[in-house]
Amino acid sequence: MAALRIGIIGGGYMARAHSVALATLPVYVEGLPLEPVREVICDATDELARAAAEAYGFRRWSSDWRAVVEDPDVDVIDIVLPNAMHHEVVLAAIAAGKHVTCEKPLANTAAQAEEMTRAAQRAGVVHQIGLNWRLAPAVQQARRLIEDGTIGEVRDFRGFWLADFGADDSAPMTWKYSRAGAGSGALGDTGSHVIDIARYLVGDFDSVVGLSRIHVPFRRDPATGDPVAVDVEDDSAFLAEFSGGAYGYLQNTRSSPGRKNHCGFELHGTKGSLTFDWERMNELHFYDSRDPKDRQGFRTLLMGPAHPYAGHFWRVPGYQIGFGETKTLQFLELVRAIGGDGQVQTSFEEGLRAKQVEEAVEASVESRAWQQVPR
Amino acid sequence: MAALRIGIIGGGYMARAHSVALATLPVYVEGLPLEPVREVICDATDELARAAAEAYGFRRWSSDWRAVVEDPDVDVIDIVLPNAMHHEVVLAAIAAGKHVTCEKPLANTAAQAEEMTRAAQRAGVVHQIGLNWRLAPAVQQARRLIEDGTIGEVRDFRGFWLADFGADDSAPMTWKYSRAGAGSGALGDTGSHVIDIARYLVGDFDSVVGLSRIHVPFRRDPATGDPVAVDVEDDSAFLAEFSGGAYGYLQNTRSSPGRKNHCGFELHGTKGSLTFDWERMNELHFYDSRDPKDRQGFRTLLMGPAHPYAGHFWRVPGYQIGFGETKTLQFLELVRAIGGDGQVQTSFEEGLRAKQVEEAVEASVESRAWQQVPR
Amino acid sequence: MAALRIGIIGGGYMARAHSVALATLPVYVEGLPLEPVREVICDATDELARAAAEAYGFRRWSSDWRAVVEDPDVDVIDIVLPNAMHHEVVLAAIAAGKHVTCEKPLANTAAQAEEMTRAAQRAGVVHQIGLNWRLAPAVQQARRLIEDGTIGEVRDFRGFWLADFGADDSAPMTWKYSRAGAGSGALGDTGSHVIDIARYLVGDFDSVVGLSRIHVPFRRDPATGDPVAVDVEDDSAFLAEFSGGAYGYLQNTRSSPGRKNHCGFELHGTKGSLTFDWERMNELHFYDSRDPKDRQGFRTLLMGPAHPYAGHFWRVPGYQIGFGETKTLQFLELVRAIGGDGQVQTSFEEGLRAKQVEEAVEASVESRAWQQVPR
Amino acid sequence: MAALRIGIIGGGYMARAHSVALATLPVYVEGLPLEPVREVICDATDELARAAAEAYGFRRWSSDWRAVVEDPDVDVIDIVLPNAMHHEVVLAAIAAGKHVTCEKPLANTAAQAEEMTRAAQRAGVVHQIGLNWRLAPAVQQARRLIEDGTIGEVRDFRGFWLADFGADDSAPMTWKYSRAGAGSGALGDTGSHVIDIARYLVGDFDSVVGLSRIHVPFRRDPATGDPVAVDVEDDSAFLAEFSGGAYGYLQNTRSSPGRKNHCGFELHGTKGSLTFDWERMNELHFYDSRDPKDRQGFRTLLMGPAHPYAGHFWRVPGYQIGFGETKTLQFLELVRAIGGDGQVQTSFEEGLRAKQVEEAVEASVESRAWQQVPR
Repeated sequence: MAALRIGIIGGGYMARAHSVALATLPVYVEGLPLEPVREVICDATDELARAAAEAYGFRRWSSDWRAVVEDPDVDVIDIVLPNAMHHEVVLAAIAAGKHVTCEKPLANTAAQAEEMTRAAQRAGVVHQIGLNWRLAPAVQQARRLIEDGTIGEVRDFRGFWLADFGADDSAPMTWKYSRAGAGSGALGDTGSHVIDIARYLVGDFDSVVGLSRIHVPFRRDPATGDPVAVDVEDDSAFLAEFSGGAYGYLQNTRSSPGRKNHCGFELHGTKGSLTFDWERMNELHFYDSRDPKDRQGFRTLLMGPAHPYAGHFWRVPGYQIGFGETKTLQFLELVRAIGGDGQVQTSFEEGLRAKQVEEAVEASVESRAWQQVPR
Repeated sequence: MAALRIGIIGGGYMARAHSVALATLPVYVEGLPLEPVREVICDATDELARAAAEAYGFRRWSSDWRAVVEDPDVDVIDIVLPNAMHHEVVLAAIAAGKHVTCEKPLANTAAQAEEMTRAAQRAGVVHQIGLNWRLAPAVQQARRLIEDGTIGEVRDFRGFWLADFGADDSAPMTWKYSRAGAGSGALGDTGSHVIDIARYLVGDFDSVVGLSRIHVPFRRDPATGDPVAVDVEDDSAFLAEFSGGAYGYLQNTRSSPGRKNHCGFELHGTKGSLTFDWERMNELHFYDSRDPKDRQGFRTLLMGPAHPYAGHFWRVPGYQIGFGETKTLQFLELVRAIGGDGQVQTSFEEGLRAKQVEEAVEASVESRAWQQVPR
Repeated sequence: MAALRIGIIGGGYMARAHSVALATLPVYVEGLPLEPVREVICDATDELARAAAEAYGFRRWSSDWRAVVEDPDVDVIDIVLPNAMHHEVVLAAIAAGKHVTCEKPLANTAAQAEEMTRAAQRAGVVHQIGLNWRLAPAVQQARRLIEDGTIGEVRDFRGFWLADFGADDSAPMTWKYSRAGAGSGALGDTGSHVIDIARYLVGDFDSVVGLSRIHVPFRRDPATGDPVAVDVEDDSAFLAEFSGGAYGYLQNTRSSPGRKNHCGFELHGTKGSLTFDWERMNELHFYDSRDPKDRQGFRTLLMGPAHPYAGHFWRVPGYQIGFGETKTLQFLELVRAIGGDGQVQTSFEEGLRAKQVEEAVEASVESRAWQQVPR
Repeated sequence: MAALRIGIIGGGYMARAHSVALATLPVYVEGLPLEPVREVICDATDELARAAAEAYGFRRWSSDWRAVVEDPDVDVIDIVLPNAMHHEVVLAAIAAGKHVTCEKPLANTAAQAEEMTRAAQRAGVVHQIGLNWRLAPAVQQARRLIEDGTIGEVRDFRGFWLADFGADDSAPMTWKYSRAGAGSGALGDTGSHVIDIARYLVGDFDSVVGLSRIHVPFRRDPATGDPVAVDVEDDSAFLAEFSGGAYGYLQNTRSSPGRKNHCGFELHGTKGSLTFDWERMNELHFYDSRDPKDRQGFRTLLMGPAHPYAGHFWRVPGYQIGFGETKTLQFLELVRAIGGDGQVQTSFEEGLRAKQVEEAVEASVESRAWQQVPR
């Protein structure tokens, strides 16, 4: 089997998650068209890069991202950098003819995202954005139940990602709390996944109106201890109308005590309903209004071999998978697409669409009015 | 113990619920200042009224509501009529010097609700609106945990009442599906309770923006089978900003498969969080961010003698109470207030405030813009 | 409608619960063959009896139980006395030709229970034991799903009632903690209901082997503060084999922190499974193995008009009923049986059978060996 | 970092699970004393072994287990064979001076397990049995809450593993359904984990009494389609007394519709309670009776960095881990122990103890009497 040599740009937390996925992919899945290889990892300094290569199982390391991007022995560039750097690095990778996978959000602005998407399309490389949360088997099964008509037409959708890591002012300042570093706050961070799941299950957004809050206006610099102003939202909420007629409510926070990773959705259709919460990510809750009256009720489906993508892992429903396996699935799609077997679900196009929704929400917060989402 | 003679106007489903409450109140609660007596019940015809009196345990019956309202042997008028009749009957009862309790919504318009509220205040009678859902022990306990500072400042509130009784077109036309009969749809029906609970826990509404849907535009007349146009919403959703700075999302539907009586809330504060669902109405879910890191988690509080109002019923948490007991509590407050022992929580003022929010929501749906709520 | 005059012997907590049921029965249920009347209540002293009559809405009171039993103006004797007194009072009531309803357990010994059962049968009176927990709609629905073959043959049953009211030594001594007063501890108290539900759903017991624990060997006399020895179990657990081939595990405690009224069951059959917990008594959890593989899962059935007995109360599933309504159902069966409309489900025979199981369990604890249950 | 060369004997489902663990361990955990290397894998034929080596990422392959056991370039023998082969291969590996990790159950008889345990102890090699389920963070946290006194003294323990993969006769005959192949049925298979968790949390078993069932007496040979007699139990249940005074109930089935991997426990102590279910393995439910009366309730702890072992994976509680990560933890303990850093929790001794309990249960089923467990 031919090798597919991956070069990761960025050595932080997500680099580790990607490395776990790359390590497990060929063990979990037989018959891959290409063998993913952890070729090179790039971090800010030689010391960091060397440590990352050793920790994450890479053959080589570098502190020069341009060199990695242009390295003829690298086939795929995998970008796990702070949001603000995505645009430049992705464009360089595309220019070098590499396939590209990039963590979300695609860019800090929709204009940049569009430029990146068009460049990738023109170059004909495989391009993927790390919107892996939709790949969870329960979300995939939700889509199946909508596509095959079981749920009927979707009437409303509530999507959410509530967390509490920023609930009080003890969490230190990071680039995630600044517009320069992150482009936006909760909306662009976790919100990009929630918007993506909404689009995946319900379709395109038509218009939005929202509000946002900064609950902790200053956070301390972890080095100096000095307070630094937070200029992106801790908390975002908006109403939406979808092109197909359904309506929605999407909420993203970092400030909700007790919500650790409360990412999910609730949707009602003309014939059935679905709910999902990542905190119990191996479950999908499903109501079928066709059941006899005295035995109707929400069912707890436990993901297993009968459900999309879950069969790659354990043969018993209930053995459980976690976040890591959804990253494995992301790379499964990438490797297959590069090997000529199908396409990735989450091309840059999906990242661009999410960013457009985010910008419309931000405009609606600013204008205190409904905003159209570009199509 | 002196008698408090109740005259009920209306003989339907709610009349029965009120009668159950009146039957149980003196058995559950010792030391009432007055003994509630089921004196007279009024329905549309003599035949209906006689049957209702027999079924619900009333001494007398009548088909003339004006006679009941003016009956010197009646102390309290209890109105369980279709919404459109509340205004006239309530004003007549007040004019006759009676204490009044009225089912929600108080009236079909805020203007009427205001007139009724001012009349009751001028007359000095005890006035109560049947916003009994806030009286559930779990909701009362939620208020306690907010008032004593446990939750900190509330940041956001999600209130909902999703149901499916109108999910498909098989449910027949009733006055609840017409503007002339009901004033509004899901928003004014179940929504009045959700707005009331929001106000009870978070405070006054400042502004709102919403949308609504009629999913089933025609329903069949149960007598003729002919289709009749539905002109009130099946489905209402809105964003809100509260005067205190919190934001909210309120959703009311009759069209959500599998949601039978999914009425509740979720709120997050600076120090803790609460969730409640009437489908498990004896439970309150509570998170305290002060708990040690490795033993933090949402707690399931099972209502019992340690919680407000639950001690009137069973001495073991988990024996369970239901909807009926919240009506018992409503009449407990009424009897005590008339007997000089405290005040009802849900005076007409609360009904007026709910109606004002509803009208602002309707205006925002119409205008596609944020609307201020009068204060 | 002719009156059915009830005389209650005993003025405590259960007298109130029965009075609530009697007050609500005719309001909830139309078409009763007889009108239940709270005729007379009997307590230990004149003072207590008068207070009980006033609090619970009885016409008359007495402190002489024999007089009540023989009162020609009483049709039914309802016994809510400490267990040790059931035998004598029930026999006297039967001798006086009264219909009898008696709280569980029927007696402190199976021999007494058998004597009472045979006497009632010979006398031809209606006899009922207060095993009301099986009357909860969710338990009735469980029986329906077993009887109609949905679940297939039951393979195993786990029944439980865990509580914590006696978890520590702060709970004072009462007759419930003494063999002389209660006959047994958790096994005869809550256990009688769990055994009854097991028999109702699975059938007769064949053999048992168990163990028991006294966790708090002394409790303080509430009057004197002196420690008194506890001589009945806080905690009982046993394995069982049913005549039909299924096996079971039954556990009853008063000593399990956090379990307030955790009464329920879990059973698996050849084609489906059921679980129930009184702490969520309006729900039955049901799994049907015939569902398609990718949409199988436990369903949460919310009791409502489609389910047995629930339709007497609210017309919306999810409005919720509680313990009180199951007592209403008990009296519904009693009134109907006396009025010639059907039979009570829980005749003395059921109480006798439960007691026989209890004694076999106690024998097995003593002998450390499997014991046959008499049939 | 020096290499630790692993030789796996057996190429089936568990070999893959172990390979996933070996692939992820060095990526998840920094600072390992040795670098685990997938050196060689052995399967029944050259063809199978070569395929396994390729699929699971091994350097070499073999179809001669004795050669692998004696291979000087292998440091650890990892046995994932059918139960009946454990004894011979483990003894050979010990004789060759290898460190050994072996899937559960350790052997088909306690006598064999004892021989293996003593041999390993005498040889001074590191020995580990694959009782990885106790390594789940929630189980580890349960132990912490018991050890630090939070729960008080444990009064009772219910352990269970209910599954439905053998619920009907459509599941084909495999070695797991035969005494010759598996030694026992559900009891020795999943039961060994449940017994291990019981011992880990509560302590040694003193005596047991149980029953068992074969629900499907014949299953079809997958090759020939002929029915073959099943001679091990589908279903096992037993009562236990622990040396410390607590009692227990343990249930293991393959025949419970809807239970996919319902493995967990419920325990009550003098001061608190705990429940766990692998179907929601990232949660521990915890009740603390010291909480104020009006805010007591079971808490849902979501495993994360604050809990034992969970910090090796994701830094956000709620990201979720699954079965795979518990195997990673098993190998983490193995690698550390061989590297001189601590000891494995699950030495052969634990496997021996579990087997002794199983044999006592089987004897009690046979004798219909309580049996002592050897100590």
